[in-house]
Amino acid sequence: MQRIPAGFLPPVAMDVGSDMPMYQQLSEWFRRSISSGQLRPGQRVPSTRSLAHELGISRIPVLGAYEQLQSEGFLETFTGAGTCVARAIPADMTMERAKRASFLSASPPGGSRRTSRRAVLMRSPEATWLANMGAFRVGLPALDAFPFALWSKLVSRHARHLSMEAMGYGDPMGHLPLREAIAEYLGAARAVRCDASQVLITTGAQQALQICAHVLLDPGERVWMEDPGYPGAHQALRTAGAELVPVPVDAEGIDVAHGARVGADARAVYISPSHQFPLGMAMSASRRMQLLRWAASNDAWIIEDDYDSEYRFGSRPLSSLQGTDTHARVIYIGTFSKVMFPALRLGYIVVPPDLVPDFHAGRDAIDTFSSMLYQSAMTEFIREGHFARHIRSMRTLYMERRVAVHDAIRRYLGDRLEVIGTEAGMQLAGLLPPGVDDVAVSRRAASMGVSVRPLTPCYIVPPERGGLILGYGGASLADIDDGVRKLSLCL
Amino acid sequence: MQRIPAGFLPPVAMDVGSDMPMYQQLSEWFRRSISSGQLRPGQRVPSTRSLAHELGISRIPVLGAYEQLQSEGFLETFTGAGTCVARAIPADMTMERAKRASFLSASPPGGSRRTSRRAVLMRSPEATWLANMGAFRVGLPALDAFPFALWSKLVSRHARHLSMEAMGYGDPMGHLPLREAIAEYLGAARAVRCDASQVLITTGAQQALQICAHVLLDPGERVWMEDPGYPGAHQALRTAGAELVPVPVDAEGIDVAHGARVGADARAVYISPSHQFPLGMAMSASRRMQLLRWAASNDAWIIEDDYDSEYRFGSRPLSSLQGTDTHARVIYIGTFSKVMFPALRLGYIVVPPDLVPDFHAGRDAIDTFSSMLYQSAMTEFIREGHFARHIRSMRTLYMERRVAVHDAIRRYLGDRLEVIGTEAGMQLAGLLPPGVDDVAVSRRAASMGVSVRPLTPCYIVPPERGGLILGYGGASLADIDDGVRKLSLCL
Repeated sequence: MQRIPAGFLPPVAMDVGSDMPMYQQLSEWFRRSISSGQLRPGQRVPSTRSLAHELGISRIPVLGAYEQLQSEGFLETFTGAGTCVARAIPADMTMERAKRASFLSASPPGGSRRTSRRAVLMRSPEATWLANMGAFRVGLPALDAFPFALWSKLVSRHARHLSMEAMGYGDPMGHLPLREAIAEYLGAARAVRCDASQVLITTGAQQALQICAHVLLDPGERVWMEDPGYPGAHQALRTAGAELVPVPVDAEGIDVAHGARVGADARAVYISPSHQFPLGMAMSASRRMQLLRWAASNDAWIIEDDYDSEYRFGSRPLSSLQGTDTHARVIYIGTFSKVMFPALRLGYIVVPPDLVPDFHAGRDAIDTFSSMLYQSAMTEFIREGHFARHIRSMRTLYMERRVAVHDAIRRYLGDRLEVIGTEAGMQLAGLLPPGVDDVAVSRRAASMGVSVRPLTPCYIVPPERGGLILGYGGASLADIDDGVRKLSLCL
Repeated sequence: MQRIPAGFLPPVAMDVGSDMPMYQQLSEWFRRSISSGQLRPGQRVPSTRSLAHELGISRIPVLGAYEQLQSEGFLETFTGAGTCVARAIPADMTMERAKRASFLSASPPGGSRRTSRRAVLMRSPEATWLANMGAFRVGLPALDAFPFALWSKLVSRHARHLSMEAMGYGDPMGHLPLREAIAEYLGAARAVRCDASQVLITTGAQQALQICAHVLLDPGERVWMEDPGYPGAHQALRTAGAELVPVPVDAEGIDVAHGARVGADARAVYISPSHQFPLGMAMSASRRMQLLRWAASNDAWIIEDDYDSEYRFGSRPLSSLQGTDTHARVIYIGTFSKVMFPALRLGYIVVPPDLVPDFHAGRDAIDTFSSMLYQSAMTEFIREGHFARHIRSMRTLYMERRVAVHDAIRRYLGDRLEVIGTEAGMQLAGLLPPGVDDVAVSRRAASMGVSVRPLTPCYIVPPERGGLILGYGGASLADIDDGVRKLSLCL
């Protein structure tokens, strides 16, 4: 039985003032010393008595630590022969130690190898314009006009009456009463044709996109992407391994003929037909028909992102593409982040009937299910009519805010920002004069507390002209005036 | 200007008793008739007056529908020439219609093509044993012993005091005070070495696994998987495109030497070292050292799933692998589903410092951020000491329940179920006699209201003997006795 004589014991640092119990400090010190190779397998360690004496502490924590380390297999004891580092621990630990030293100096821990998926994830430029809540944070609704007292009363009531079933594992598809309420709402407001069995509750539009990407596509498969388009969709699709085919948009929306030329083999199309992100136009009826036809003939899926079409000013909301699809090719995505508030983390997917098992399994694999509390509160909010009422009052508010942004742009920016898109939603886009760097403008604006989003990062093929997206949903009239004035200083 | 004369107008079905306004029923009917090719581009439609007359309804809804359809581009009007279906709509719609008829009959909509990822998602056998709440649902804690009144009071208070910031977009890494509380808890209870900047809040362990899989691996890369192992991890890793290398486990945990032989090129290792899922053993100190050394030398990551190690009976909890790792190779995953309740949807990842930006971006791409309400309530629950108290009282309860399961197994099953694993956690596994089909037993048990999980679906390489996993966390002493008795009838 080989035994290594007690060598030099590395200094034990004990912190008597620490919250961590002594025995724990000590056992952790031993684990790390063994793991780093400072204590070698078979090496004798001091007796509990002499270590306690050496450290000037009671013997009790030392006994506790040794007992713990023995039960974990780091130390072993032989009657009459004392305690040593377990010999079963790989013996080349000291060699390992030398190697580690060079490893650590040669490259930072974990810094040696990165995936190509990392390049995708880290693609978006440092988005300083997202860091503050100032006007004109894109996607932020008018939180100040949200019926907060009503909502929080409702949530506390549901929190007090949650059943035991509601605390356990839930249905990956979501809370059935909420799915029923959504199916009904979408039928009436968006001409979506579905029943509750097709509705899948998600933690928002981003997760909805992730699930679509993982269920509908294999890694390496191609997807038409509106160019410019929603960067969150770029992220979701690329994370799932999809290859994006940029398809330009014009005044009628995505150019289907172009897509059919460059992406004939694509298996899916991502579009925002009601209010294109970021440019704001609505997809024309003829383009809609073309796209539905192309998808049906080419056995491709259409992912319809209907992120903010509750708000359309001047005309009635356009019906969804899903509602005119007779081939069950459209997967429809919606979110409550814009009509309620982002931290609600509730969105939904309307799935063609025979894909329901696939999406059910996809949600299960991705994060199991959504928490019940907000789902049940949201159901009541819709059922009691608060939701419809809130949308109506926000429509008026956003129309005012939109007019105010237009006015302020005319007043402060003149023709330095050419507003485009239709009268809808919670944001508008404008083009900057040729040669102006929109990312730089957004950075400058962020430093002044104004959050505008540059157009360029929404493009796959770099555009000739940059531009800005101004979210006016969360901006008061005073913020709007002040924000656009500050923006004029950045140009 | 080519114009097609008004042809046969397909029958318009109006439902006067419907909740849907007349104008909307009508415009939807038109959209679908155009989209399906029943109305062709350029075809004249009746005047509003004559259609109203024909349908026996007021002219107002017909005017409303036509106006809407024009604004959407489905209809166009020429002064003096009446209204027709927009000619910009693709002209071969009628041909399309014929094609569609055959398409629909030849294959169900959407049924024509499926991804190979689908095969992964749909892999798990129909899990009837998950459908009920009966004893012994794996992973379900003792909801009846949860301090419900205290928790709901806390949640309602936070619901009433949520700030406007907390309703907007949150930090993808999570609520900082919660991350601080977790870092502190893990340091004390699990010897995890981290600070709050390394803690990422997730919607649970499943999402944590998804994020790890997407951040650490490219599609097609290989991962060691404990065999048997956690089916949720199979799903997460395969969904991300990883290839699983089954590595057997024995009484000391995963067989590192075997892994090094068959999976030398693997880029990650998935393990549950503190309480192996499903078999229940703890990984020995020497295997831990071997694995850490292998990962450091081979530039591979270790995903440590520490799903229920709060509960260990008889000895102090084993420290985490992360705490003995000196090479920053370990990504540590934990969840509150077991110590709090599953519908809380809160888990966490402890990330090596230099991978934090990658995981931040990964969480952002996957579903942006977690809702604030439960995060802030959970922070207070920990800070006020309720969390530590709850764990202590559950430890006593689960120890009792574990003893009761052991006793009941001895009484009713005798040697028909050979219990394995160590004294820990909320579940135990037992082996069935050779030749007994564990999936069939679980199905029979489910039909009697008893939820046991078969071992076979946890294996990649089919095992010689099947077995059952009994989750006793959520089962009362009466449930346990009754459940095991029923189980004996299924064998």
